[in-house]
Amino acid sequence: MPITDPTRFVLMHTSHAGNVGAAARAIKVMGFGDLVLVQPRFADMLARDEALAYASGATDVLERARVVDTLAQALDGVTHACATAMTPRDFGAPAQAPRAALPALAAAGQRVAFVFGGERHGMANEDVWRCHSVLSIPTAPDYGSLNLAQAVQLIAYEWRQAVGSFDVVPATPPPQWADAQAVQGTLAHWREALVAVRYLDPAAPKKLLPRLNQLANRLQLTREEVHILRGVARAMQECAAAAGGDRGSKDDTVAGPGLH
Amino acid sequence: MPITDPTRFVLMHTSHAGNVGAAARAIKVMGFGDLVLVQPRFADMLARDEALAYASGATDVLERARVVDTLAQALDGVTHACATAMTPRDFGAPAQAPRAALPALAAAGQRVAFVFGGERHGMANEDVWRCHSVLSIPTAPDYGSLNLAQAVQLIAYEWRQAVGSFDVVPATPPPQWADAQAVQGTLAHWREALVAVRYLDPAAPKKLLPRLNQLANRLQLTREEVHILRGVARAMQECAAAAGGDRGSKDDTVAGPGLH
Repeated sequence: MPITDPTRFVLMHTSHAGNVGAAARAIKVMGFGDLVLVQPRFADMLARDEALAYASGATDVLERARVVDTLAQALDGVTHACATAMTPRDFGAPAQAPRAALPALAAAGQRVAFVFGGERHGMANEDVWRCHSVLSIPTAPDYGSLNLAQAVQLIAYEWRQAVGSFDVVPATPPPQWADAQAVQGTLAHWREALVAVRYLDPAAPKKLLPRLNQLANRLQLTREEVHILRGVARAMQECAAAAGGDRGSKDDTVAGPGLH
Repeated sequence: MPITDPTRFVLMHTSHAGNVGAAARAIKVMGFGDLVLVQPRFADMLARDEALAYASGATDVLERARVVDTLAQALDGVTHACATAMTPRDFGAPAQAPRAALPALAAAGQRVAFVFGGERHGMANEDVWRCHSVLSIPTAPDYGSLNLAQAVQLIAYEWRQAVGSFDVVPATPPPQWADAQAVQGTLAHWREALVAVRYLDPAAPKKLLPRLNQLANRLQLTREEVHILRGVARAMQECAAAAGGDRGSKDDTVAGPGLH
């Protein structure tokens, strides 16, 4: 899938090449690819070894990225610039949590840029003023220091969720659930088997059966697991049959507290 | 605020000390602090320079972290282990998106651990099976390669949102909005001023006033901005008075297309 989303990510006054590379990777995994640097610490920031290493498979984002001198130059074609600010400002649009603010922005049909300040001081006040809205990621009151690339990752993720998320890759095959009839049949089979192995006394069943039924419901068994449980019950019955009826009185062998 | 949340983050077979440090920082900014490493590449992983550098202000999380040999050892006290898996598995709980799965888990009263595999291959299949649920972060179909610390950051963020988010730090003072009466008064003042400077011809106002009214509503003016706009209107009126009535015929000076 080629990246066609026009969302732009703008990094201002970035100091660490590793963060630039990690930011490129962070936006690419969320399906974005437009990166602009404003006055990075090094002129060759996009080509530095550390940037390339941290970009991993996202070096194409670095290759297409631009370096410019001002925020205004970074915002050509952009109709709505979101500042990110983690520290208080004298002035500017009210700070909003990404999850609260981004769905409405996604629905507004704007061409959006997200703007991130440098590692040490964040965005300059005069650049916050130039933006249409201000995002602040909710963090722990005693330690709110997000790494720059981590902040880019969270905003890219939230924006992807807002504009339409990708599907979850089915990491596991879909389960084949057993229907309730199959589960009840299994429980009836286990009841017989538990009597055969003398764990359950049919004359004094106590609450064992309702407990096993609740356990089975909570298990949400698959069809394969029903086969396994049926097999175990069958093995118990066969074992009891092989042991015969001469194993002494039931009272000696009935199990202890267990599920009773 | 001391960290009292019992949520645990388990990193298995981690190779890079920088990722361990960045993960410590990632969980601390979201108010968590319980980190366990299972068989990291280096025995001194928690004390390596790179881990400490990337932890930034979260070295206390590294100091309290444990190193163990097996996933089972990492899960003492945990009642629900969430695997993270970005690649398909033969077997295991169905993969769910964090945003879909975590609110119900947060409400279930479990003691939760999130488990992350190594940088290269993710979690081993036999460790995925040991977990109660599987999370998969939705990423771009053509490039889903999240950095380990970024994955930890996103899960920590989503879990924080699910269990109860921190407030957004008010990065800017709350705006003092102007009420609609003040805005209408300002528009009336501007109407007079625009007539005085001969931008508006009262005999042929066209759609200028409704357009300015719509613009003013969209602006959502603050009280301070109303004062500024009133001041500009006053300056226009004073300028027109100083220029007197002898600037030639109105027809020569009326403005061009503009907002008409």
